[in-house]
Amino acid sequence: MVTKNEIKFIKSLRDKSIRNKFNLFVVEGKKSINEFLNSDYKVYKIYSTHPANISYTDVIQISEKQLIQISALKTPNKHIAIFNKIKFPLKNQKNYFVLDSVSDPGNLGTMIRTLDWFGYDQLICSKNSVDCYNTKVIQSTMGSLSRVNVHYVDLYDLISSSNLPVYGASVSGKSILEFTEKKDSGIWIFGSESNGISEDISKLIDQNYCIPKGNNCVKTESLNLSTSFSIILSFLKLY
Amino acid sequence: MVTKNEIKFIKSLRDKSIRNKFNLFVVEGKKSINEFLNSDYKVYKIYSTHPANISYTDVIQISEKQLIQISALKTPNKHIAIFNKIKFPLKNQKNYFVLDSVSDPGNLGTMIRTLDWFGYDQLICSKNSVDCYNTKVIQSTMGSLSRVNVHYVDLYDLISSSNLPVYGASVSGKSILEFTEKKDSGIWIFGSESNGISEDISKLIDQNYCIPKGNNCVKTESLNLSTSFSIILSFLKLY
Repeated sequence: MVTKNEIKFIKSLRDKSIRNKFNLFVVEGKKSINEFLNSDYKVYKIYSTHPANISYTDVIQISEKQLIQISALKTPNKHIAIFNKIKFPLKNQKNYFVLDSVSDPGNLGTMIRTLDWFGYDQLICSKNSVDCYNTKVIQSTMGSLSRVNVHYVDLYDLISSSNLPVYGASVSGKSILEFTEKKDSGIWIFGSESNGISEDISKLIDQNYCIPKGNNCVKTESLNLSTSFSIILSFLKLY
Repeated sequence: MVTKNEIKFIKSLRDKSIRNKFNLFVVEGKKSINEFLNSDYKVYKIYSTHPANISYTDVIQISEKQLIQISALKTPNKHIAIFNKIKFPLKNQKNYFVLDSVSDPGNLGTMIRTLDWFGYDQLICSKNSVDCYNTKVIQSTMGSLSRVNVHYVDLYDLISSSNLPVYGASVSGKSILEFTEKKDSGIWIFGSESNGISEDISKLIDQNYCIPKGNNCVKTESLNLSTSFSIILSFLKLY
């Protein structure tokens, strides 16, 4: 059973401020829910039209109509879970991936998924970046958010207090094919979709790098943010 | 001046069937419109709240209110243009990039943008794939659709009549790092977001390839489609 007030509460978790207040977030769909159940995250409540399909004891049965009311998806996916947020400590690593003012939830989710694929478990975002517990972000990560910890920090403080080399992704930078530094340590900064890396953070960059264009291509101005991110990650990890 | 009927007509172009019937499509925003104006596409009509900002003689002045009515965007972008669709001939090329049943417009748009960046000007899609003249696709290409021709064909016929080697992107394939074939010719097939490459097309593949995972990563099942596409393109073009 789910009450009207409970439905209202779950829907209210679409707001970042409510998620922060109650320290909760919503995950939809069997695959993603299972990945969060198998992670350090602790479940708060699970609702389902088919409770037997979820390997958790206290699943609350809901009707199809209630599912549609609760879900943020166009085509709701049988199961909806609420998890407690965790404040992970920032790990010391050789490579830091840093997003400056990223605003598109689909892009953020895709980048978290790509990090997970390449075996990275940490991402740094500026405080004004889109919240990783946003429904669309969680959907695009396809469960990877359960394994990649996203930290919202003051980028200037973090970067300026580090001794690691600082690299910026920029269309006007040097080609990654001319990269001669060690690939296994550094701070890799990516700017926002519309404005690139902000001015104060740009000053901290030791070297800007770009993904070289094809020979025939003179007119394209930029790549999608999560595309650049993926190509740079594959460059670091595979070659 | 724009009439009520005209507003209704422009809005109706959000439907693929109406776009096909009139052979027209809509482009929004100065940057994208300018890129289409500088391409082989012929303009049908342009509407703007700020006609002086568009380098075209017959721009139709509209009000802010009318712009909001016409636009498919949440935050409309001053200018809206209608262009005539073109039926481009399929070019003989050494590399063909093929999408089987792609359904996400953002993914398709991002892939068109990435092709353009790497200097490719042609993309093949199965007939059931999302229409490249869909508003969201056009928005995500950021003008690149004006330079990349998308063909909707019977994939089975096209692939089976070609002598080029056929490669499939598949998580169960051989790592691209073990790729020993010539990189400058082949048919590269990518499957749909949810179901991968369809069964009949799979039978035509000579070798499946995958992007290797990081060492620590065992749990992620797949990469986003446009992410895999970008990493494979960068593999072919850069290394």
